[in-house]
Amino acid sequence: MTISIVQTKYFTFDELTLENGEALGPITIAYETYGLLDANRTNAILILHALSGDAHAAGYHEGEKEPGWWDSLIGPGKAFDTDEYFVICSNILGGCKGSTGPASIDPRSGKPYALDFPLITIGDMVNCQKRLIDSLGIDQLLSVVGGSMGGMQALSWLVNYPTNIRSAIPIATTVKHSPQQIAFNEAGRLAIMADPNWNSGDYYKGNPPDKGLAVARTIGHITYMSDISMAEKFGRQKKWSSPGEKFTADFEVEGYLRYRGDNFVKRFDANSYLYITKALDHFDGFAGKTVQEAFQNIQAKVMVIAFKSDWLYPPYQSQEIVKACKMAGLQTSYCEVDSTYGHDAFLLEIEEESHLIRHFLKKIYYDYEVSDGYNI
Amino acid sequence: MTISIVQTKYFTFDELTLENGEALGPITIAYETYGLLDANRTNAILILHALSGDAHAAGYHEGEKEPGWWDSLIGPGKAFDTDEYFVICSNILGGCKGSTGPASIDPRSGKPYALDFPLITIGDMVNCQKRLIDSLGIDQLLSVVGGSMGGMQALSWLVNYPTNIRSAIPIATTVKHSPQQIAFNEAGRLAIMADPNWNSGDYYKGNPPDKGLAVARTIGHITYMSDISMAEKFGRQKKWSSPGEKFTADFEVEGYLRYRGDNFVKRFDANSYLYITKALDHFDGFAGKTVQEAFQNIQAKVMVIAFKSDWLYPPYQSQEIVKACKMAGLQTSYCEVDSTYGHDAFLLEIEEESHLIRHFLKKIYYDYEVSDGYNI
Repeated sequence: MTISIVQTKYFTFDELTLENGEALGPITIAYETYGLLDANRTNAILILHALSGDAHAAGYHEGEKEPGWWDSLIGPGKAFDTDEYFVICSNILGGCKGSTGPASIDPRSGKPYALDFPLITIGDMVNCQKRLIDSLGIDQLLSVVGGSMGGMQALSWLVNYPTNIRSAIPIATTVKHSPQQIAFNEAGRLAIMADPNWNSGDYYKGNPPDKGLAVARTIGHITYMSDISMAEKFGRQKKWSSPGEKFTADFEVEGYLRYRGDNFVKRFDANSYLYITKALDHFDGFAGKTVQEAFQNIQAKVMVIAFKSDWLYPPYQSQEIVKACKMAGLQTSYCEVDSTYGHDAFLLEIEEESHLIRHFLKKIYYDYEVSDGYNI
Repeated sequence: MTISIVQTKYFTFDELTLENGEALGPITIAYETYGLLDANRTNAILILHALSGDAHAAGYHEGEKEPGWWDSLIGPGKAFDTDEYFVICSNILGGCKGSTGPASIDPRSGKPYALDFPLITIGDMVNCQKRLIDSLGIDQLLSVVGGSMGGMQALSWLVNYPTNIRSAIPIATTVKHSPQQIAFNEAGRLAIMADPNWNSGDYYKGNPPDKGLAVARTIGHITYMSDISMAEKFGRQKKWSSPGEKFTADFEVEGYLRYRGDNFVKRFDANSYLYITKALDHFDGFAGKTVQEAFQNIQAKVMVIAFKSDWLYPPYQSQEIVKACKMAGLQTSYCEVDSTYGHDAFLLEIEEESHLIRHFLKKIYYDYEVSDGYNI
């Protein structure tokens, strides 16, 4: 069963003091909800999306054929069972999917912020989500859950709002980016900024830097798949190309990457890509704190999920989260799924993820003992 | 001891029929030699370079402070001992380091070829080297040796000129690119072609596509290092950046990549980058042949070297070469070096490489038994 028609909602508040001290406002956050909040307001789960995701996690928008990005996990009888839970998916500050970001109108100038938009952090994104949750009258979330950048937000919730969550499920993520992860993001940023249409971020009246953004997405895409998954999907299959034409997409994998890059630019803002990747690179989950300080007195339970072939957020980074949680005395389980899909596995390994999440949530919700560490 | 002053030499011949059937000429190939050819002409070793390499493998050019790119392996008493061997390093067809390539003058038009340069292959590069070796009066090489693309050339020598070599040392290479390897090259090509200065390859009178080429090099650079080597070299060390400036190089790793990208464009031609990466992607060492057919009656001995942390040309690809050679009855040894340097290891793991190469060459030269498979 699937959720049928859903609509994105918008929550607006006056102002937020960012982690860098600047004030930003007004701020709108796009979000969707699925299922019903129970009378005690104890069944709310917050879903947090990755770099290019949005608030539309499940169900269908009127007239659209594709469901939300995690529809296979959210719905009646699914892992995030909307017959039991009230599921909220919040878009992020800095994005371009209905929430305030660099493409939004700066009230001071009446024009898009562009690079006048302040540098934002994962913590700022989470502070916006906290305001949203407050506005919904929810004091404590049953769980905060997300993959990739969504996992960083879940970790940020755990450190900054430990009493407002009963559990966290960080998936395919890290406490902080390695230099390799920073380097891949930097290559994408350089590609965007190399595009003359970028024009120092001031392109909203003209042509956007589509070519640069497509290159950035291509780089990203390679890191989301694995050597094996690419070999299985494409091999060295050739594409048809006109004789005499040079530097066309000769191989299937090239055609796929070009197609995905060209599609991405239709739905994403290049400046948002810059701001969000910088937020990712600067994220340091326990910044300035020891693990013990960061996680002091936290009662929340944690399940960390990693995927064997994920080389962008490799399992060793998830294991570092687990170690930190355990060092601080948190009840933590670690599940490493044997997938060949690479980083994309968090969107694709639905069956195993469903089992893991379903049982974990039930145990939290009905408050029975969470087992301590299993490996599948 | 090191070789002192050396000069690049140039060998020109009238015409080559390319593997695609087209005729190209005249062709100039830049090369250097170190040591002396013995009276029997049996001590010649051909060194083959990687994507951005050149003929200057050892010694110093007049007035320059940096020696050739493999100077630590080539010289008196070194692995390629110039007191014993006559070492030749040949630049490649399609390059921009003195050999004929897309920036060379097309005799038909009197202007640079640009995209009128034909698509070339690893086999074409090797056919040029064969002409060079013939012109030097050498019938049989003691060894052909190269890392990365140089290793592909060594494999191509083994398949196409088996009686003209006594041994081959393919290092950190593959029989054919995986879709992931193709994808990384394609991302670089898209970055170059996205630069409006590229102008469909016709930029030799104007500004070259430096920004696009720098992005391509950045992508390449990430793949040459490893997650570990980047962590060891850069960590999350911050760079100084002006307050208020956005999307600068905040981390050391970003500064390093920008610096390397900016330097690369001073010494490399963007069109050559396109042509050479296409030659890499299309290389299929045993194309259209079974391993047994490809390696029929080959007496040459093979030593394959791989590096544990090389994720661009992972050890499994070297193991495939070894398996193919052994299936065809070739005397083959496999050496996997436990390095953290990633793909760059073939330029950096000098001590272990020196031992391996020195002993292997001596055994070939003095014709004693080559041990069959060792692992270090």
